Amino acid sequence: MESAVEGYRGPALDLLRRYGTKAGQYVEVLMSDGQTLRGLVIPRYQSADDRHIVLKLKSGYNVGLDVRTITSIKSLSGGTENASNDLSSSKNESEKTSLSGKSLLLISTGGTIASRVDYRSGAVFPALSAADLYSSVPELDKIARIEPEVVFSITSENMTPRDWSTLSSKIIDLASAKNPDGVVVMMGTDTLGYASAALSFSLLGFKFPVVIVGAQRSSDRPSSDAALNLRSAAFFAVESKKPGVFVAMHRNESDNEIAIHRGTRVRKNHTSRRDAFQSIDSHLIATVRDANQIQWRADQITPNIPVEYLLKTKFDSSVALVKFHPGFDPGVLDYLADQKQIKGIIVEGTGLGHVSDGVVSKIAQINKAGVFVGITSQCIWGHVDLFVYGPGRDLISAGGVPLENMFAETAFAKLSWVVGNFPGRTKELMLREFIGEFNARIPLSSKMSRSGSAQ
Amino acid sequence: MESAVEGYRGPALDLLRRYGTKAGQYVEVLMSDGQTLRGLVIPRYQSADDRHIVLKLKSGYNVGLDVRTITSIKSLSGGTENASNDLSSSKNESEKTSLSGKSLLLISTGGTIASRVDYRSGAVFPALSAADLYSSVPELDKIARIEPEVVFSITSENMTPRDWSTLSSKIIDLASAKNPDGVVVMMGTDTLGYASAALSFSLLGFKFPVVIVGAQRSSDRPSSDAALNLRSAAFFAVESKKPGVFVAMHRNESDNEIAIHRGTRVRKNHTSRRDAFQSIDSHLIATVRDANQIQWRADQITPNIPVEYLLKTKFDSSVALVKFHPGFDPGVLDYLADQKQIKGIIVEGTGLGHVSDGVVSKIAQINKAGVFVGITSQCIWGHVDLFVYGPGRDLISAGGVPLENMFAETAFAKLSWVVGNFPGRTKELMLREFIGEFNARIPLSSKMSRSGSAQ
Repeated sequence: MESAVEGYRGPALDLLRRYGTKAGQYVEVLMSDGQTLRGLVIPRYQSADDRHIVLKLKSGYNVGLDVRTITSIKSLSGGTENASNDLSSSKNESEKTSLSGKSLLLISTGGTIASRVDYRSGAVFPALSAADLYSSVPELDKIARIEPEVVFSITSENMTPRDWSTLSSKIIDLASAKNPDGVVVMMGTDTLGYASAALSFSLLGFKFPVVIVGAQRSSDRPSSDAALNLRSAAFFAVESKKPGVFVAMHRNESDNEIAIHRGTRVRKNHTSRRDAFQSIDSHLIATVRDANQIQWRADQITPNIPVEYLLKTKFDSSVALVKFHPGFDPGVLDYLADQKQIKGIIVEGTGLGHVSDGVVSKIAQINKAGVFVGITSQCIWGHVDLFVYGPGRDLISAGGVPLENMFAETAFAKLSWVVGNFPGRTKELMLREFIGEFNARIPLSSKMSRSGSAQ
Repeated sequence: MESAVEGYRGPALDLLRRYGTKAGQYVEVLMSDGQTLRGLVIPRYQSADDRHIVLKLKSGYNVGLDVRTITSIKSLSGGTENASNDLSSSKNESEKTSLSGKSLLLISTGGTIASRVDYRSGAVFPALSAADLYSSVPELDKIARIEPEVVFSITSENMTPRDWSTLSSKIIDLASAKNPDGVVVMMGTDTLGYASAALSFSLLGFKFPVVIVGAQRSSDRPSSDAALNLRSAAFFAVESKKPGVFVAMHRNESDNEIAIHRGTRVRKNHTSRRDAFQSIDSHLIATVRDANQIQWRADQITPNIPVEYLLKTKFDSSVALVKFHPGFDPGVLDYLADQKQIKGIIVEGTGLGHVSDGVVSKIAQINKAGVFVGITSQCIWGHVDLFVYGPGRDLISAGGVPLENMFAETAFAKLSWVVGNFPGRTKELMLREFIGEFNARIPLSSKMSRSGSAQ
């Protein structure tokens, strides 16, 4: 367990050693102001400062305690109401039976949520185990028996369409072998919105709920969202009985409600807030309160999809996403089409989907050469509509395919999937709705209806 | 005035001709249900249907009347309380003295707000005159004497950094000659956010308020926002006495309140809503109610800027904006740096500003070759922060310059301006705040303070 103090340095490490305490232990801390605090000692990032010890309180909150304000630390191992949280008394966590009788396949790919010390060191992350998890988020055992699997150990900005293929296949294989009640995928938040869209397509027809979850602030920081996100994702995965791909992240800045987003309609709209993820022009599927109550808000669209589209896990890398801007050089499209032999491009146009005349001409040229060009808007919200103005109609004549209100990130993931699995059918399938990627405001239990969107 | 019926075709044109009526006339329409409506006949887009006549009511709203429901039309020329709205009695509109005694330089560049019939025909837009304006928005004469100038007749998606230079110079020349109380620039909304940022830099030190205004729905459509946007922009321009560049657009979907945004902090976030424009991580400067009351909300930042930065109107086109995505091909950066000899690139990273390891390496390479690389986030809201994770620190080592919470569109416009006017000083000046392009939440009358953002 020596590695359990990894991340602590200097005065903080000295203090822990002085009292024979280590990360993962349940302790009582006497503060210099007379207050006592009980909680789990949580490991820290190696890059964190060396003057604080982080305690996970029973409330779920983490607090950083300045070592200069700590009078003494008492280990509560073996005693007290929280004995089960103490690692030293729970050597066989992974065999533990959950209180709920449910089982969860918990897949880790990397990212903030899976990192307790700097994951670039390689030391901690690959060692992710049931014991690690129970020590970070002890309440998990009330939700389900956890079957943890490490598929990748990468930051999400390094995740590629090829990785989406690997991840999809792994999820299918592992779930088939273990037959859990649900699946949770932990990943970095940076490209989580792209990946949730990708998996929504590659897991069409998959019988398990798949909930993708991340954290904006790592579990060794005060105000971390990791624990509640993970517990809520796990609860939704094993209790919802709702096949589909979802994203579970904080709904607002307070710490009791988690939003369950439709995998194809969710976007990271803030760099750092805990509620950075938003459903775009779309209701939430549900919210989860206190990691133990689901409130339904809208149905996932579960159309009857022909078997030819189910569990198709390939993603093609020869696709691109290009944002138009004033003075945009159409030569970029030439480069992608001619030099890189790209098969399809999603263009983020302005407003209703417009691009400059020069780009319209270039699109006509590469489209004639066989490159699919899908048009979305950098506005993010709203529908593209190329019939309002003359230049928009020119863009359609040039072969640009307006993609309604599918926003760029989802359109890109879908394009990679369509090109990867159904050669020669790109335009047809990009315009076909599979899993809520178009639209919008679907009221609860009005499956398959599309509200007012042109098609 | 024959061109004033342009846009009307088929049954609608027949009906207008039958009653000797034309666009621009004030009429009373008897409907088949016995109702009578009074208003101005508004020209239509050539691409609009041929079954409706559009009437501008005194309330400012436009209504489309089905010709099959119209019993008769009576011209009110020369009579009634609204005689001044009748074009036939106002040949000399441009010499009219405004009620307020103020004067407004009204510059048109094209776009929805300046178009009454399809502007690609070239027939209507270049003829924009004071008479045209008073006929579209008769209430303008209460606000100011209008000095109209047509600078361009282009859609905003075709506006380039070079056009920003031309427009900036024209504004300076025209305002110096006419010495108005304020300036309004009408343009298409698609790249209005980019242009408002651009002009915020090129017009530093300009003594007049410059308000950029557009419309999401053209003035011949019911629910057009053109009239209220224009009247409110004009009112703010001539009454605010506030040098700076602002954007005036609907604040919400109702039709009485206009938001005045800081030119460097405003983004088009919806493809079609009238309130598509939002201030990002920033207070509104003001709101304008009923086009006649200004409510102040935050100060424009008006730092003491050395004279070397004032009225520098060049924009360099050898800059680019690139959005990162999963599987992004670093070769795009090579193409821009090597083949196009670009001098600077704004990268839209994910989350806190991250990009893949391959892109980090490529950035190191082109940065060594002298290309500036500024890092923003595709999240739109929030600060980039490359110090939280290891890969972010690698990106900084590679020469990527994190641009705080300046979002990509503003960063791109600023880069074009910095490169155009101050060769060799790109990094220094990209990090220097000129006009509210960084930050955020500046309270009313706390000029120059920057709230909590790192710099």
